[in-house]
Amino acid sequence: MADTAHLTPLVHPARDEMTVEAVLRALADPVRLGIVRQLAAAGTEVACGVLEVPVTKSTVTHHLGILRQAGVVAGRQEGTTRYNSLRRKDLDALFPGLLDGVLAARR
Amino acid sequence: MADTAHLTPLVHPARDEMTVEAVLRALADPVRLGIVRQLAAAGTEVACGVLEVPVTKSTVTHHLGILRQAGVVAGRQEGTTRYNSLRRKDLDALFPGLLDGVLAARR
Repeated sequence: MADTAHLTPLVHPARDEMTVEAVLRALADPVRLGIVRQLAAAGTEVACGVLEVPVTKSTVTHHLGILRQAGVVAGRQEGTTRYNSLRRKDLDALFPGLLDGVLAARR
Repeated sequence: MADTAHLTPLVHPARDEMTVEAVLRALADPVRLGIVRQLAAAGTEVACGVLEVPVTKSTVTHHLGILRQAGVVAGRQEGTTRYNSLRRKDLDALFPGLLDGVLAARR
């Protein structure tokens, strides 16, 4: 039995299960937008602990869950570390321009 | 005194007051998305009464208020009729691609 078996399994919608409403709701929050901006800037996987967010660890976990369930972010567990990445290909395929428009916002 | 003086004045943020969070929040609702899609398809002003929405008139007014306060929609009162239009220029200038990405969504 893997030593990560006690962790909640990560839920990811398939591309054809994603909806624009859920994506918009997921993005419409300052903390989650901050996370998305950092993942976009990184362009690669980012461990939870490396994300700069003005909230507690459990609140980050909550926000990452919302982003993941909407299909905005993919999570990958490796040992005790959780890595997060932006599902840019899926977002760009379903809603071309949306993510770039959000990232272009100055405020 | 105009006969529309009893109506609530319409509040519109200037372009530099608009935020991506408020716009995303405004768009993240099925009724409001439906209104935005209709205004985009019309490409011109649409009277409230012409909008096809599965809600009561007062609920439409509520949703249009949220869209207006976020800067997504502009309202114009003429007599007893209120006309609505999409602030596409402002949205495209601030968040290029966002609106088109949302409108491209199949669900």
